[in-house]
Amino acid sequence: MKTLIVHAHPEPRSLNSALKDLAVETLTRAGHEVRVSDLYAMHWKPVVDAADYGPHASSPLRVAADSGRAFEAGALTEDVRAEQEKLLWADTVIFQFPLWWYAMPAILKGWVDRVFTYRFAYGVGEHSDTKYGERYGEGTLAGKRALLSVTVGGPEPHYAARGINGPIDDLLFPIHHGILFYPGIEPVSPFVLYGTDRLTEEEFPDVAKAWRERLLMLESTEPIPFRRQNFGDYAIPSLQLREGLEPAGRSGFGLHVR
Amino acid sequence: MKTLIVHAHPEPRSLNSALKDLAVETLTRAGHEVRVSDLYAMHWKPVVDAADYGPHASSPLRVAADSGRAFEAGALTEDVRAEQEKLLWADTVIFQFPLWWYAMPAILKGWVDRVFTYRFAYGVGEHSDTKYGERYGEGTLAGKRALLSVTVGGPEPHYAARGINGPIDDLLFPIHHGILFYPGIEPVSPFVLYGTDRLTEEEFPDVAKAWRERLLMLESTEPIPFRRQNFGDYAIPSLQLREGLEPAGRSGFGLHVR
Repeated sequence: MKTLIVHAHPEPRSLNSALKDLAVETLTRAGHEVRVSDLYAMHWKPVVDAADYGPHASSPLRVAADSGRAFEAGALTEDVRAEQEKLLWADTVIFQFPLWWYAMPAILKGWVDRVFTYRFAYGVGEHSDTKYGERYGEGTLAGKRALLSVTVGGPEPHYAARGINGPIDDLLFPIHHGILFYPGIEPVSPFVLYGTDRLTEEEFPDVAKAWRERLLMLESTEPIPFRRQNFGDYAIPSLQLREGLEPAGRSGFGLHVR
Repeated sequence: MKTLIVHAHPEPRSLNSALKDLAVETLTRAGHEVRVSDLYAMHWKPVVDAADYGPHASSPLRVAADSGRAFEAGALTEDVRAEQEKLLWADTVIFQFPLWWYAMPAILKGWVDRVFTYRFAYGVGEHSDTKYGERYGEGTLAGKRALLSVTVGGPEPHYAARGINGPIDDLLFPIHHGILFYPGIEPVSPFVLYGTDRLTEEEFPDVAKAWRERLLMLESTEPIPFRRQNFGDYAIPSLQLREGLEPAGRSGFGLHVR
C-alpha cells in the first residue's frame, strides 16, 4: 500500500501521536510506503481565504469558483498542492484525530476545507440525465480507501444506538460519506478508542495490539458499502433514494448504506 | 434580547456577510442589544495548542485538564476570555456560516474548540446516581438560546429525508445537540438557505425578508425539544435512552428529541 497518514494533535507525546507513530512503524515494517502530514508540526494554515487563490481570487471572493480556477491553473498555494499530490499518490489514507465536540479538530477541518478544492474534490464530471457529476463513489479520488482512527473521551455506551451522544456511525457519517466518499474515497469501518480520558499506560499495549491488527488487515478489509450516486439507486436530479431499496425501518444516514 | 452573532465567512461582500449585517440592523432597530464576533475580521486563531493555557499548559499537554485549570485561574488567553464573556452576556447566540463539507468552516470549529473549555462548557457539575454532570440541557450556558443561519450550496431535495447528503436536521445535530445543548444552550429550528451557489441578486430581497421575519420571531420561537440528560429519560451512567420513550420507528439522532 501507499499510505498517507493525516495527523491532527498538538502534542507529540499524546495517545494520538503514539497511534500515528505506531501506524508508521507497523506499515513500514510490513513493506508499505508511508507518508505523513502532521498538521500541527507543519503549522498547517487552517482557514480558507483569498490568499489561497493568488491572482485567481476574485473580488468579491467566490470560494468555489476561485479555488477551481486556481486549481486548474496549477496556481493553488504550495502547501495545498503538496497535499493534493500526496492524495493522488496514496491508495490509502489514514486520518488520526481526537473527536472534539463530535467532529474533527479545526486544523483537520481546515485541511479538508483548503485541500478539497473545486475541480479537484467537487465540481468534477458532467451532468446529464443519468449522471449528476462524478461524486459519491466516483471522482478524482476513486479507487482509494480511507480509515479514520479516532480517540473519544467518553465511554462507548454513550455512543451506542440509544446513547445520548448519538451513534458513532452517524456522528462519523458526514466525514465518511460527505467528505471521503464524495470525491470517490471508500472508507472502511473506523478504529475508535473510547474512554481515552481515563486510559492508563498499562492499558496501552492492548490498544497498540488492536491497532496493529487493524492496520495489517487494512488491505483486505471491505469498505463501508455506501450506495454510489450514478448507478440507479437515486433519482436524478433530485438525488432522493428511490423508494423500497432499504431494509425495513432504516432511515436517516443509514439509508445510504447498501 | 442580548444577541451575540458569531460570523464565519472570509468575504465581507458575501451572502453570509449580508445576512450578518441584516441581523445586526434588524435586531438593533427592534431595540435589542447586539454584539458581533466576526471571526475572519478578528483573525481568530483556530487551533488549540499549548499557547492557549500559558503557565497552566502541562508537559505533555493535556487539552481538557489544562484548559480547565487555566479557565479556573482566569488565565486563558484574552481572545478566549473575551468570547466566554460575550457568551455569558448574551441570552441569544446566532451562528452565521456556510456549510462546507457538511460541517462548520474550520475557523468556526476552532472558535468552539478553543472557547468551549473544560470547566466552562464541559466538566461542569457533580456526578451522582441521578446526575452525570451538568450537560445536555444544564450547564454554564443554560437558559440561553441559539439559532444557526446556514447557507448551503446544493439544492434542498439533496438534504431531505431521502436525499443523498443526509437530512439537514441530522447533519446539524452534532452542532445543535453536541455543541450547543451540551453546555445548556437551547437551539431553535435553523434558518437554512439552499442553492446559494446559484442565488441571484434579484432573489436576495425575498431571502432578506424571510431572514428578517425569522429574526423578529426569534424571541417567541420554541426551541428544539431535546431531551434533558438528568431528568429520567436516560439511564445513568450508561446514558442510554430508556426503552419505549420514542415514537414508533424513530431511531438515531431523532431519539433525542422529545
